[in-house]
Amino acid sequence: MNKYVPINSLEVPRFAEIKTFMRLPNIKTTEDIDYAVIGIPFDTASTYRTGSRFGPSAIRDISSLIKPYNAPQKVNVVEKLSGVDYGDVSVNPGYIEDTYERIEKELLPVVKSGAIPICLGGDHSITLGELRAIAKIHGPVALVHFDSHFDTIDSYFGKKYNHGTVFRRALEEGLIDVEHSIQIGMRGTFYSEKDLIESENLGFEVITSFEMREIGLANTIERIINRVGDKKAFFSFDIDFVDPAYAPGTGTIEVGGFSSMEILDMIRKLKDISFIGYDIVEVLPCVDPSQITAFLASNIVFEFISIIALQKK
Amino acid sequence: MNKYVPINSLEVPRFAEIKTFMRLPNIKTTEDIDYAVIGIPFDTASTYRTGSRFGPSAIRDISSLIKPYNAPQKVNVVEKLSGVDYGDVSVNPGYIEDTYERIEKELLPVVKSGAIPICLGGDHSITLGELRAIAKIHGPVALVHFDSHFDTIDSYFGKKYNHGTVFRRALEEGLIDVEHSIQIGMRGTFYSEKDLIESENLGFEVITSFEMREIGLANTIERIINRVGDKKAFFSFDIDFVDPAYAPGTGTIEVGGFSSMEILDMIRKLKDISFIGYDIVEVLPCVDPSQITAFLASNIVFEFISIIALQKK
Amino acid sequence: MNKYVPINSLEVPRFAEIKTFMRLPNIKTTEDIDYAVIGIPFDTASTYRTGSRFGPSAIRDISSLIKPYNAPQKVNVVEKLSGVDYGDVSVNPGYIEDTYERIEKELLPVVKSGAIPICLGGDHSITLGELRAIAKIHGPVALVHFDSHFDTIDSYFGKKYNHGTVFRRALEEGLIDVEHSIQIGMRGTFYSEKDLIESENLGFEVITSFEMREIGLANTIERIINRVGDKKAFFSFDIDFVDPAYAPGTGTIEVGGFSSMEILDMIRKLKDISFIGYDIVEVLPCVDPSQITAFLASNIVFEFISIIALQKK
Amino acid sequence: MNKYVPINSLEVPRFAEIKTFMRLPNIKTTEDIDYAVIGIPFDTASTYRTGSRFGPSAIRDISSLIKPYNAPQKVNVVEKLSGVDYGDVSVNPGYIEDTYERIEKELLPVVKSGAIPICLGGDHSITLGELRAIAKIHGPVALVHFDSHFDTIDSYFGKKYNHGTVFRRALEEGLIDVEHSIQIGMRGTFYSEKDLIESENLGFEVITSFEMREIGLANTIERIINRVGDKKAFFSFDIDFVDPAYAPGTGTIEVGGFSSMEILDMIRKLKDISFIGYDIVEVLPCVDPSQITAFLASNIVFEFISIIALQKK
Amino acid sequence: MNKYVPINSLEVPRFAEIKTFMRLPNIKTTEDIDYAVIGIPFDTASTYRTGSRFGPSAIRDISSLIKPYNAPQKVNVVEKLSGVDYGDVSVNPGYIEDTYERIEKELLPVVKSGAIPICLGGDHSITLGELRAIAKIHGPVALVHFDSHFDTIDSYFGKKYNHGTVFRRALEEGLIDVEHSIQIGMRGTFYSEKDLIESENLGFEVITSFEMREIGLANTIERIINRVGDKKAFFSFDIDFVDPAYAPGTGTIEVGGFSSMEILDMIRKLKDISFIGYDIVEVLPCVDPSQITAFLASNIVFEFISIIALQKK
Amino acid sequence: MNKYVPINSLEVPRFAEIKTFMRLPNIKTTEDIDYAVIGIPFDTASTYRTGSRFGPSAIRDISSLIKPYNAPQKVNVVEKLSGVDYGDVSVNPGYIEDTYERIEKELLPVVKSGAIPICLGGDHSITLGELRAIAKIHGPVALVHFDSHFDTIDSYFGKKYNHGTVFRRALEEGLIDVEHSIQIGMRGTFYSEKDLIESENLGFEVITSFEMREIGLANTIERIINRVGDKKAFFSFDIDFVDPAYAPGTGTIEVGGFSSMEILDMIRKLKDISFIGYDIVEVLPCVDPSQITAFLASNIVFEFISIIALQKK
Repeated sequence: MNKYVPINSLEVPRFAEIKTFMRLPNIKTTEDIDYAVIGIPFDTASTYRTGSRFGPSAIRDISSLIKPYNAPQKVNVVEKLSGVDYGDVSVNPGYIEDTYERIEKELLPVVKSGAIPICLGGDHSITLGELRAIAKIHGPVALVHFDSHFDTIDSYFGKKYNHGTVFRRALEEGLIDVEHSIQIGMRGTFYSEKDLIESENLGFEVITSFEMREIGLANTIERIINRVGDKKAFFSFDIDFVDPAYAPGTGTIEVGGFSSMEILDMIRKLKDISFIGYDIVEVLPCVDPSQITAFLASNIVFEFISIIALQKK
Repeated sequence: MNKYVPINSLEVPRFAEIKTFMRLPNIKTTEDIDYAVIGIPFDTASTYRTGSRFGPSAIRDISSLIKPYNAPQKVNVVEKLSGVDYGDVSVNPGYIEDTYERIEKELLPVVKSGAIPICLGGDHSITLGELRAIAKIHGPVALVHFDSHFDTIDSYFGKKYNHGTVFRRALEEGLIDVEHSIQIGMRGTFYSEKDLIESENLGFEVITSFEMREIGLANTIERIINRVGDKKAFFSFDIDFVDPAYAPGTGTIEVGGFSSMEILDMIRKLKDISFIGYDIVEVLPCVDPSQITAFLASNIVFEFISIIALQKK
Repeated sequence: MNKYVPINSLEVPRFAEIKTFMRLPNIKTTEDIDYAVIGIPFDTASTYRTGSRFGPSAIRDISSLIKPYNAPQKVNVVEKLSGVDYGDVSVNPGYIEDTYERIEKELLPVVKSGAIPICLGGDHSITLGELRAIAKIHGPVALVHFDSHFDTIDSYFGKKYNHGTVFRRALEEGLIDVEHSIQIGMRGTFYSEKDLIESENLGFEVITSFEMREIGLANTIERIINRVGDKKAFFSFDIDFVDPAYAPGTGTIEVGGFSSMEILDMIRKLKDISFIGYDIVEVLPCVDPSQITAFLASNIVFEFISIIALQKK
Repeated sequence: MNKYVPINSLEVPRFAEIKTFMRLPNIKTTEDIDYAVIGIPFDTASTYRTGSRFGPSAIRDISSLIKPYNAPQKVNVVEKLSGVDYGDVSVNPGYIEDTYERIEKELLPVVKSGAIPICLGGDHSITLGELRAIAKIHGPVALVHFDSHFDTIDSYFGKKYNHGTVFRRALEEGLIDVEHSIQIGMRGTFYSEKDLIESENLGFEVITSFEMREIGLANTIERIINRVGDKKAFFSFDIDFVDPAYAPGTGTIEVGGFSSMEILDMIRKLKDISFIGYDIVEVLPCVDPSQITAFLASNIVFEFISIIALQKK
Repeated sequence: MNKYVPINSLEVPRFAEIKTFMRLPNIKTTEDIDYAVIGIPFDTASTYRTGSRFGPSAIRDISSLIKPYNAPQKVNVVEKLSGVDYGDVSVNPGYIEDTYERIEKELLPVVKSGAIPICLGGDHSITLGELRAIAKIHGPVALVHFDSHFDTIDSYFGKKYNHGTVFRRALEEGLIDVEHSIQIGMRGTFYSEKDLIESENLGFEVITSFEMREIGLANTIERIINRVGDKKAFFSFDIDFVDPAYAPGTGTIEVGGFSSMEILDMIRKLKDISFIGYDIVEVLPCVDPSQITAFLASNIVFEFISIIALQKK
Repeated sequence: MNKYVPINSLEVPRFAEIKTFMRLPNIKTTEDIDYAVIGIPFDTASTYRTGSRFGPSAIRDISSLIKPYNAPQKVNVVEKLSGVDYGDVSVNPGYIEDTYERIEKELLPVVKSGAIPICLGGDHSITLGELRAIAKIHGPVALVHFDSHFDTIDSYFGKKYNHGTVFRRALEEGLIDVEHSIQIGMRGTFYSEKDLIESENLGFEVITSFEMREIGLANTIERIINRVGDKKAFFSFDIDFVDPAYAPGTGTIEVGGFSSMEILDMIRKLKDISFIGYDIVEVLPCVDPSQITAFLASNIVFEFISIIALQKK
C-alpha cells in the first residue's frame, strides 16, 4: 500500500473535511512520495484580470470530485502512487523577484528528492521560478507549452518580469532546451505579424491553433512527441488554451479554442514523454460561479498524475 | 382542437403569467391528456452540490421560450397533443423512503390513465419512485439511460438509497428489463476499473463516452435501438451527460462531454422506441446565472414531447 | 501613419483609461476615418430578457484585449486603417419610432462620408434604423443575416416594430435587395412550419442551422457568396446565432448552435463581399459574469474591421 | 372558511408546486375574494437598468416563504381573508400607451368587484394604468408614495410617459386627490434645487429622506396620516425607497436609505388609512443573486394584505 | 507558548496554504487544546434553500482574514489559547438519524477532554447531535439560542427530525435545562399566533425581535444573563438571526433583523456565561458572491473563542 | 457657464455614451478646471482579494446616475464648477515603485495648476504616490483618513510597500503633517494590542469604530475639525470603512461598520476643512453584482466635489 493516499470518498463525503488536492494528505514531506501537488498563489504579474492567487484554493475545493481510476489510460493512480498536497509556496504578493526566489527555494527539495512537482498557479509568471529549481537539478529541459499566448514578449512597460515574458526569460537564463521545446495553441489577436515568428526566432517549434485546425490533433501530437524526443521535459499548461466556453474562469480569454474533450485526449497521448515537472496556471475563480474551470484544471492535473503512474516502474 | 394547450405567446408575452412548463395549463388531471409534465423537487440524495429541488421551477421559468413546432422532426406538438403541467409531487425533504412512496402514489394515476409522464428532477434518486409506479402498470421496462455516471453503486456510507445507487435498486426490485436496457455516456474518473464492468455484470449494455467517441454517434444510436427493440422503455436523462460548457448547472459535473447539438440530434433519432415515460434530472440552477442549463433541459423535454406527438396515431 | 489609432497596450495597460472600442479615440468625426464604431444602446424592442442597452458598454470594456494583427487574414488593422469610437446614438428608451429617427439621423453623416459604420446593439430592432440611413445613400442593399431567429414576423401583440419583425419592415420599406439577401443559422423551436418558409416567401434565401449541419460550413459560405454576388451588402450578426455555451449573455438563447471557432472562420471567408455596413446585436451582459459573450462580440467586430482593412486599396 | 387560501406549507414543502404569490390559487376571478395580487411585468419605461419585467416572477418565487400570521399586527391573513393570485396583466413590451390601456382594462373588473388590487411591478410607469382603473370607480384618490424619487418630472427626451413622470401624468389626468397626497423618502442627487419644490408646487406634501431623519419616523407617520385623513388612498411603494444594502435588486439605486425594519414598521402604522389599492414596483431580480430584494417585496405585500385583514369587518 | 496556533499572516499571506479555520493546524487531537473548531457539513434537514453543507468550507476560506487580538474584549486569543481545526464530522448526507449518531460519536471525545467544541454548520438540525454529546458529559444544559425562528415545531410532513424541530427534540430527550434556557430574536411571519407561545409553553423564555426593539439590547442582554445564571450553557447561533443585508447567504432569510455591529456587541456582553459549547449554523455560500455572510460567521466564531480566552484561568 | 460640464441626462440617456465619471468630458487638461477626477487602476499591493484595478472603471460606469444638485449641502456642482475626467494614470502592474513615480509625475501638473485632484483607486498603496505629488507643491499636509484599517504597518513579508504600510511610508517621507492628522474608523480584529497604539505612537490622532460608537458621530466630527484646524488637508477614504452590507465590493472586508447614510452625513460636515486633494480606494467590482459599492463610491466623490463647490469663491 502506498504511504500517502486520498481520503476514501465512499466513507467520508466529498464535500466534507479540509480541502486538499484530490483529498490527499497535506504534508510538507519529500519522503515516500512519487509526486507533490504544490500551490503557487501568485498573481502580481497579471496584465489584465487578476485574482488567480485564489486558483490553487479553487482547484483544491472542486478536486474532491476526482476519483482514482483513469479509464482511457487504464491506470489507478492511488494504487500506483503515493502523493501529497504539499501546500502552497509562501509567495510575496507584489514582489515578483522575491517570489521567484521563494518558489525556487521551496521547490528545490521536492525536485531534488525525485518526486515530480505539479504546480497550481497563480499566473503564468510562476513558471520561471519553477524552471529555475528544475534546471538546477536537471539542467535545461524541453518545454511542452500549451497556451493561447506565446509568453515570449521581451518586456511590458519597461519591465522584464510578468506573465507575458516568462519563456523568454527562461530561455535567457538557460533553463530551457529550446531545440526540443514546442509551443502549442497560440491564437486570438496579435500586436503584429512579428509576434508569430518571434518564438520561432528564439528557437521554439510553434503550432498555432490555426495550424492545429489544419493539420489535425493527431499530427499535432506527433510533432510534439518528435520534438521532445527522449529529453526530460516540463509541461506548462495555461488554462486559457481551452476555449472560454469550457474555461471561462481565466484572466486573458481568447475565443476560438479547443474543447475539454480534445484537450484531455491530447494530454493522454503524451504519456511517453519523460516529464519531470508540470504546472497548470491562470485559473481565476471569481468570474466562474459554476466552477467548471477549476474542475477542468483538476482533471488536467489528474491526467498529469496518471502519466506519472503509467511511467512508474 | 386539443383540450389543454399552452398560452399563445403572440398574444401574451413569454415573460408574463404564472410559470408552468411551456406555458401549459397547471391542472392535476389525467383526463383528455396525452402527457403530463410533473416536477419532483427532491434533492436529499445528492452526494455533492445540492439544490436541484429548484430544478423544476428553473426549467418552468425559462421553458416559456419553447414554441410548438419541431422542425427536424416535422411535428407541431400543440396541434397533435393535449398536455398539462401536473404540478409537483409533494416530496418529503430529508426522507427518501417516504418520498419514494409519495412519488409512486402520485404518479400512479397518471401512468394508469395512459398519459405519458415526463418528470423533472430533482436529483437522480427520484427515478426509482417513478419506475415503481411505471412497473406496477407496465411491468419491468427497458431503460435508456443517458448520464455521465452509472448510478449502479451498491451503497454510500452504508446506505442503500441515493442518487448513485438508483439503478441497482431498480434492478433488485425487478422494475427494469435489464436485457433490453442500456447505459450511455459514462465518463470522468472512477473508483476503480471494476466500476466500468459492474453495470455490465448486472446485465446492462454500456456505451461509455470514450467508446461513443470511437464508434460515433450513429453507431451509438443503432446499438440503443437494437438493444431496446420493441419493448416498452423508460428514458432517463441526467443533464450531467452534457458537457459542463453547455450545462454548467448541475451537481456533479464531468468534463469532456457532448454538445447540446449532438444530444438533441441523438434524442430525435430514438423516435421509434416505445417510451412510456421520461425524466430529466439534476438541473441545479443556483450555479448557472445565464439559465442555459435549464433552457437545454426545456429543449430536451420538448424533444420528448415531440416523440410522443410523432408516435400518436 | 493613420490619423486615429488605438492606445498602445505595451505602454498603457489594457485595464487603464476610459473604455472605448479597442481603445480607439472617442471622437464624433467623419473625417480621415475608414470606419466608425457606433453604439446603439436600445433594448425597448426585446420580447424576453432585456438589458442589451448595456451591450455597447460591455463590448467596449472587454475589447481592450483586442490587438491589431489578424493572423488568419494576414492584416494589421491599425497599420491599414484609421478608425474612431463614434460614441453612442442618443436613443430614446421606450420609444422605438423616435429612436429609429435618431439612429437614421446620427448615422447618415457617417454613411455619407464613406466611412464604414459598425454598430453595436442593443436589440435587433435597431437594424431598421441603420438600414434606413444606409439605403438613403446606397439604395437597397443585400443583407447577410446570421441569427438563430428569422426576425421576419409580421407583428407581436398588434404592433409592427420590435426585435422579431425588423427584416420584414426593412423589406416593406424597400431597404433590402432581397434577391441578393440571405439568412443563415435559424434553429430552435418555431410557432409552426410556416415560420420556416415565410422568409423564403418574402424572397430571402435561407439556410437553417439544421441545413448547415447537413451541407457543411464550406457549402454554406459558398451559397452566401453566390447569393450576394457583387452587390453592396450589409452584415447583421445576432450574437444568439452562437451556441449559448459560447455566448450565454443574450436575451433569447437557442441551444444547438455553432462554436466561436466555426463562426470566426465563416466571417473570415466572407472577406470579398462588398460590405458597406455591419452590426452585432443582442449582447446582454448582466447574465454573463465571465464576459465571454462581450469578448466574442469584440472579436467579431475585429473580424469586420479586418475585412475593411483587406478591402482597402 | 375562506374560499381561496394558500397551500399549507406543513403539508407541501415551500419549494414545491407552481409559484404563485404566497402560494395562493392562481385564478382570474373577482368573486369571493377580498384581494387579488396582480403582476404587471412591464419595464419599457425604465430609464436606467431594465429587467423589472421579471419582478413579479421573482417575488412569487420567494414569497412561498411567507406564513399567514402577522405578529406585530396580531392578525392571521388566511383566517381573515380570501385572496387569489390573479396572474399577470398582458402588457405590450415596448408600447407604453397600449400597455396603459391593457392595465386599465384588466384591473377594472377587480376594482369594480370591491376586491383590493395589489399590483407587482414592473417599473413605476405602471401606476398610471392602475390609477386610471381605480379613479374610474373611486374618483381621484389620495396618494401615499414611498420612493427615493419624485417621479413628477415633466418629460424625458421629449416624451411624456416613463417611470419618472408617472405622478405628474396622474395629476394632469385628475386621478389623484393631490390635497391629501404625500410623497415620502426622496433622496440622492437632483437635477437642480427646483426638483425639490416641483412636487410641492404641484400640490403634494413632501417629506424627503433628509427631513425624515430630522423629524423622525414617528412624526413622518403622523404627517402621512394627517395628510390622507379619511380619504380613499392608494399606496405606491417603490422598492428603491429602501437602502440598497437591503434592496440591491432595483434599477435606479440611491444610497443613504432606510432599513427593512424601519420600513415594515412604518407600513404597519398606516393601518388605519382607507387604502383601496396598493403596488410595489421596480424589483429587478437579475442583479440580486441572494433574492433579498424580492423577499423584502414579498414581506411588504404581506403587510399590505395584513392591513386589508385588519380593516375587514 | 501555546501548542497549536495559527500560521503567522505577516509571514505567509492570508490567501496562501490549505484553508483551515483562522489558519489553525488541522489535527484531530484532544490533547493540549483549549478549543476545537469542528465542521458539520450536513444540510439534509433544510426545508427551503439547501447548500449549507458547503458552510464550513466557506467559513474556513474567508476566516484567514481573522487576526488574534480582540480590541473590545482586550484579549489575544493566540497568546491565551491553544486550538485546532478538528476537521469535519463524517456526516451521512440524506440520513439524519445516522448523522446524529456520527455527530455524537465524533464530538464525544472532544467534550470529554474538556476542550470547548465550536461547531460550524450545516443546517440547524445538527445541534441535536451536538447536544447529545454534550449532555452525556455535562447533563442537561442551559440553551442560549439566537435565531429568527423558534425551531420548536413538532414535525414537518409527518417527520420528527429537521432543522425546524431541533429544540423540541432536544427538550424531549432531556438535553436542555429549559428553566435556564432562552430564545432570542424570532421574527418574520408565522403559521399562527400559537407559534409565538409554543416555545414558552415548552418552558423557554422568549424574546422576539419585536420585543427586543422595544426593550432595547441592554435589557435583552440582562435577561439572558439572568435566565442562564451560573448554569453550564450552550450557545447556538443561527446566522439568519442577522438581517439579510448583513447575511444574505442563508437558506430561510427573514427581513427586519439586526446589524452585524449590534450582534457582535451582544455576544461580547455574554462573556461571563459558562458556555461549554457553541455552534453557528445555516451559512449558505452559493447565494453570496461577496462572502460577507461567511466572514460575519468567522467573526462570530472569533467572539466565541475570545470568550473562551477571557474565561481561561 | 463653466467650461467643462457633464452630458445632460435629460437629453442623452444615462446608459448611453462612453463612460466617464459623472459624464464629464474626458480631457487631460489642467486649464479652466476646478477639479479633475483621475483613475489610478493599480492593485498590485493588495494583500488579500485583488481586482481593484477595475475600480475606476466600475465607478465611472455607475456614476452616470449622479445628478448635479446636492440637496443637504444646497449646492449645484455643475453650476459652480468646471471639471474633467482626466482619465487614468498609466500605472505599471506588478511594479509599485515605478508606479509611484508614474502617479507622482502624472498628478504633479494637476496639483500645480491649482485644480483639486480626486483619485479613484485601485488599492490603498496609491495614496503614497498622490501625497508625493501633493507635498511637492503644498508641503506636508494634514491627513483625514477614513478606513477600517490603520495602514501604518511597518512591512509585510520583508517589504516596505503595499496597501497596509502606506501611511507609515508617507510619514517617513515627510509628506504628512502628523500633528494635524487623524485616522477614523479602525475596527475588526488585530495582530496585537500594539496595533491600536502604533498610529498614536507615530503621532496620529485615532478614533476607532469602537470609540466612535461611544462618543457618537457628532463628537467624532468635532474632533476631526479641531485636529485639522486651518491646515491644508488630504482626504483619503477607504471604502472598507463602510459596513460590508453597504459596500460588499472590497478586498479586505470588516464587519460591524457604518451605514451609507451615516457616512455621507459625516463627509458633508467636513465641508469647512481646506482639502487640497481626495481619494477613494479599494472598490473591487467583481464580487458585487449589484454595483452598490461602486455607486456608493460615486456618491462619496460627489460629496467631495460638493465641498469643492461650496468652498469656491
